Formats: sequence, structure tokens, C-alpha cells
Amino acid sequence: MSTKEQLMAAIAPQVMQIEQAMRDDLAQETQGCDPLLAEVLEYGIFNGGKRLRPLLVLLAARLAGKKENDKDKQNLLLLAIAFEYLHGATLFHDDVIDRADMRRGKPSVVQQFGDIAAILGGDFLHSRSMFLIGSVGGGKALEIFCHATNAMVDGEFLQLRNARNYNLSEDDYFSAVQGKTALLIAATCEVGAMASGATADEQKALADYGLGLGTAFQIIDDLLDYQGDAASTGKSVGNDFQEGKMTLPVILALRDASAQDQKRLLFLLADDARDNTGFAEGYALIDKYDGFGASRKIAESIVAEAVSGLESFSGEDAPEIVLIFRTLADYVLSRNK
Amino acid sequence: MSTKEQLMAAIAPQVMQIEQAMRDDLAQETQGCDPLLAEVLEYGIFNGGKRLRPLLVLLAARLAGKKENDKDKQNLLLLAIAFEYLHGATLFHDDVIDRADMRRGKPSVVQQFGDIAAILGGDFLHSRSMFLIGSVGGGKALEIFCHATNAMVDGEFLQLRNARNYNLSEDDYFSAVQGKTALLIAATCEVGAMASGATADEQKALADYGLGLGTAFQIIDDLLDYQGDAASTGKSVGNDFQEGKMTLPVILALRDASAQDQKRLLFLLADDARDNTGFAEGYALIDKYDGFGASRKIAESIVAEAVSGLESFSGEDAPEIVLIFRTLADYVLSRNK
Repeated sequence: MSTKEQLMAAIAPQVMQIEQAMRDDLAQETQGCDPLLAEVLEYGIFNGGKRLRPLLVLLAARLAGKKENDKDKQNLLLLAIAFEYLHGATLFHDDVIDRADMRRGKPSVVQQFGDIAAILGGDFLHSRSMFLIGSVGGGKALEIFCHATNAMVDGEFLQLRNARNYNLSEDDYFSAVQGKTALLIAATCEVGAMASGATADEQKALADYGLGLGTAFQIIDDLLDYQGDAASTGKSVGNDFQEGKMTLPVILALRDASAQDQKRLLFLLADDARDNTGFAEGYALIDKYDGFGASRKIAESIVAEAVSGLESFSGEDAPEIVLIFRTLADYVLSRNK
Repeated sequence: MSTKEQLMAAIAPQVMQIEQAMRDDLAQETQGCDPLLAEVLEYGIFNGGKRLRPLLVLLAARLAGKKENDKDKQNLLLLAIAFEYLHGATLFHDDVIDRADMRRGKPSVVQQFGDIAAILGGDFLHSRSMFLIGSVGGGKALEIFCHATNAMVDGEFLQLRNARNYNLSEDDYFSAVQGKTALLIAATCEVGAMASGATADEQKALADYGLGLGTAFQIIDDLLDYQGDAASTGKSVGNDFQEGKMTLPVILALRDASAQDQKRLLFLLADDARDNTGFAEGYALIDKYDGFGASRKIAESIVAEAVSGLESFSGEDAPEIVLIFRTLADYVLSRNK
């Protein structure tokens, strides 16, 4: 079996539990609501998402925790789906902001149902997610969750500011990635660990794993914007280049390029928005200085460090679950969509 | 002094505390954030809002509660500003949905800063508001808050469905108003009462007051869309009519009109979107059947009942605070913006 197939087989039971928990919860929450609201949520949430975030909650809890009773398990599932709701809410809103027509190969919520449905449907999910976190996880979980949410908003503002800032450093890039993606993934692991009674050290190890995984996830995402296969990703390549976004491959290539190539690459980045013809030449320049390869190596090294921090877990199930975490990390590195 | 001047004098100290609490909290929360995010929040929140929601939290707590110590007071202020943040978040998002250029006489957040700032700035406020409610007010307050938030979303979907539903009944109208406006105002009073240790009966009396006040507030809002002075309201009149919205004056006029006038009014409502010339004739028809006067009478009777429920409070400060609640209700009825 491929890495992906192995992983899918290992996590299939949890993914099914997550799907079912969301169906049950949304059915209950939209009871008596306007049918269009229920339809919008159903359409936007059950769309073939990978369920990475809720899965991490469940895995972190299993790695850190004791055997749970049924009520604990149910509460853990509610915490898990809260993260997927929040993720869904951000996708609803991002697609309004980006005026994105498509999401995972079908029309986005905003395209299908309009602004009001996408914005307010997102608000509904956001509200439900925070209610679940606060009422099931308590004050500390709510704090971690809100910190990550607001860091995500701040990360988007930072990215807005960074656009066309051609002096962006690696540090600036990693700050934005942390806010935009990685802190929330870290929060999934931390909240899952906390809910199952993990020690502070265990919580930290799992949060660090999530931070590394999330950072690598975003680096690969940025690579796919150059190297992805549109048929797999469902997104066209070259958007970041056209928008002049300073992602890691560009930053690394600019760092190492000759003065002449630097100047040319910057010209192409700034110019591509106008006529969208410079992507192939820009790609070749980035590749000449190994911007893509070096970015991938950084992602690999971040992931390796993140996984190594899990070796201290010594429970009975630990080897099996750490293997899943490792496979998940490999999958994030090898994914093509 | 006019009703409004009396009210303003009575509530001035609380309004100042609310403003200061928001300034302090936002300064702390946006420390280290992107400066644009801080600017967007400052612009959107400090815009001459009436602070009705946080004020109701403080007044309900005073009416129901014992004397508080400083920590209680500080916590109560945090609960109060949470409601104003949520209100702010909905205004940010509503103006994106409605593509509204202006808000309280100056460019709306979306007009001034664009979609990303309005949507994500709203999300930031939403997240912060729920964190404050959950961490300060606890699980029960979070539940009331989220129920009201999601009812608000549902109310907007219901209103979307009700648009151009020319068979809308009074009941349908009141259901939508409850979700859209009144439940959240009821929540301010209920959470304020709960935070100060009110009995269940006291909580209910205050929640009922809020529900009545919120319903009257929305009826008057809908009247102002016909009768308001654009210079005071900052909004042009006739929007609801042009959009074919079935608000209370229209529903009541249709109920009482002759078959011929019914037919004509429905034609004008459906037709006005096309050329926007039927408003004056439509206004006259609604007025012929006392749609405006009858709506106002309903608002007055709802408010009178809401206020009468507060007469059972017997604390030392009760007469003074009930008077403020009564004046607030009179102000809602008499407001012209």
C-alpha cells in the first residue's frame, strides 16, 4: 500500500466517527431552522474534506490519555468537530474574500448560495464551534482556541501587508504561516491532549508536533501553487506568482540568486499581474536557485523534528499512534492536492 | 430636558465605562498584531454607536444584583463589551452582504477597508466576544449567547426567504424579528442578571423586558424605513418597499385593505424594484389603512408590557433603575434614527 493508503486505512474508523458526529450535531442544531441554512451547512461541510483537524484532536487524546468512558469519548468528538466547524467557517469566508468559484472540485458555498449564505453560514459554524469548545473543553481550551482563531485573522492581515513586499524575510514568512495555519493545527493537538488529561510536557510535545505539521502543510501548499497538478488540486497553478506573493520558494531563490537574476525575478513578480505571461520564466529562475527543492527540504526537516518530539510517549498504544502521526506527516509532505 | 436628554444624563457614566473598557481590551488584544487590524477594529467599533446592548447588561445586573466588588464590576464590563463586539461583528458582516457604503454617516468598514478587513475583522470581534462570554460568564452564559447568535443567523435566512413572500403573516414577521434582533437583546439582560446572581424569576423578567424592547426596536426600525428623515437616520427611506420586504406596516395594511387596494399595494411592492416610482403611492395606501399608526401602537403595547414586568423588583436602587429602563423604552419608541 502507498503511504496514503496505509494512512487512510489506519484512520478510517475515526474519520467515520467524525463525519457521523457532525451529521448528528448539525441535524440537532438546525432543527427548526430555515431549511436553506441547513442546506448551506450540509453542502459546505460534507464536501470531501480530509478532516485533518478533528483527527488530530482524537489522535492526540489517544496518545496522551487514559482509556476513556463513553461520555469522555462523546465529549472528545464534540471538541474534534468544533475544529472542523471553525475550519469550515474560514473556508466559507475565504471564498467570499477571494471570490473563489470552486472548492474541492465543486462550486464554493458563495458561488452556489451567495454572499449572505457564505458569510452568515460561516458565522453560524464559528459560533457553534466556540460554544462546543467552551462548554465541553472549558476556559483553558476556549483560550487556546480563540488565541489561534485571532492569530489566523492577524496572519491574514499580515499576509495582506506582505503582498508585494519584495523584501520579505524567511522570518516574516514563518510568522505569517504560523498565524494563518500552524497555530490552529497546534491547538487541535493541544486541546485533544488537554481533554484526555495529558501532563503539561505531553501537551507541549503534541502542540509542537501540530505546529511543525501545520507549518510543513503550508509550505507544501505554497509549493503546490507552483508545482501542483490542477486536475488533482482543483486549483490552477501560478496564482501566488501572479499576485506577487512572497512564499518560501521565491524568498529562498531571491536570497541565493545573482544580482541580475534577482532583478529579473522581482520584475517578473511585479509584472505578472499585468499580463500573466512571466510565470514560466519565473518558475525557471526559482528552480535555478533550487527554491522549490530547498523549500521542500525545510518542510522535511520541520516535520522530522516535530515527529521526534513524540518519541517520549510510552503508553501501551503509543507506538501504533506515533506511527500514525509519522505517516500523517509523511502524507503532508507527499500530498499532491 | 427631553426624554433623550434625561436618558443620556442618567446613563452617561456607564457609557463612558463601556467605551473605556473596549479601548483597554482592544489595545491589549491587538498588541503585537498587524497595525491595519487594530485600525480596522478601532474604526468600526468607535463610531458613535449607542451602546444599547452593553448598557442593558450593566443595568440588568444593577437591577437584579447585590453590590459588587471591583473584580465583579470588571467582569461585568467584560460581559457587557462582549455584546457590543458581537453587534459590531454583525454590522461589519451585514455591510459586506448589503454592499452598504455608509454606516452612521461615515464610510462603512467594507467601503473604507475592503472585504478582507470587514469579514475577518468581524470574525476577530466574534471570536473575542465569545471568549469573553465563555471565560467570564461560564457555560450557561455561553449557551444563551450562542443560541441568540445562531438565531440571528437563522433570522436572516428566514428574512431572505420572506422577501417577496406577499402572504407573510404577523406571526412570521415576529418570528423573524425575534431571531434577527430581539433574542440577542433579551440575552444582554439575561446574562447581566445571571452574572449578578439574580433569581430565575428575575432573570426571566429581565429577559422578557429585553425581548419586548428588541421587538419594539425592530418595529420602529422598520417604520423609520418609511418615515425616517434621511438626514437623521443616515439611511435613505423606501429601501424595504423597493426590495418588497414584508414589514409590519405593509402586513397590517394588507390585512385591512379592500380587495382592490390590496391588489394595488401588492403590485406596487412587486413593481417598485423595477423603476422605483411607486413608493409615494404605496406609502399613501399603507397610511390609508393606518399601517404605520397600528404598527406604532403594537410597539407601544409591547414596550408597556415589557416595562410592567420589572415592577416586581424591590431593591433599594430599583425605582431609579426601572425608571432608566422605562426611559430607554420610551426612547426606543420615540427615536428618529
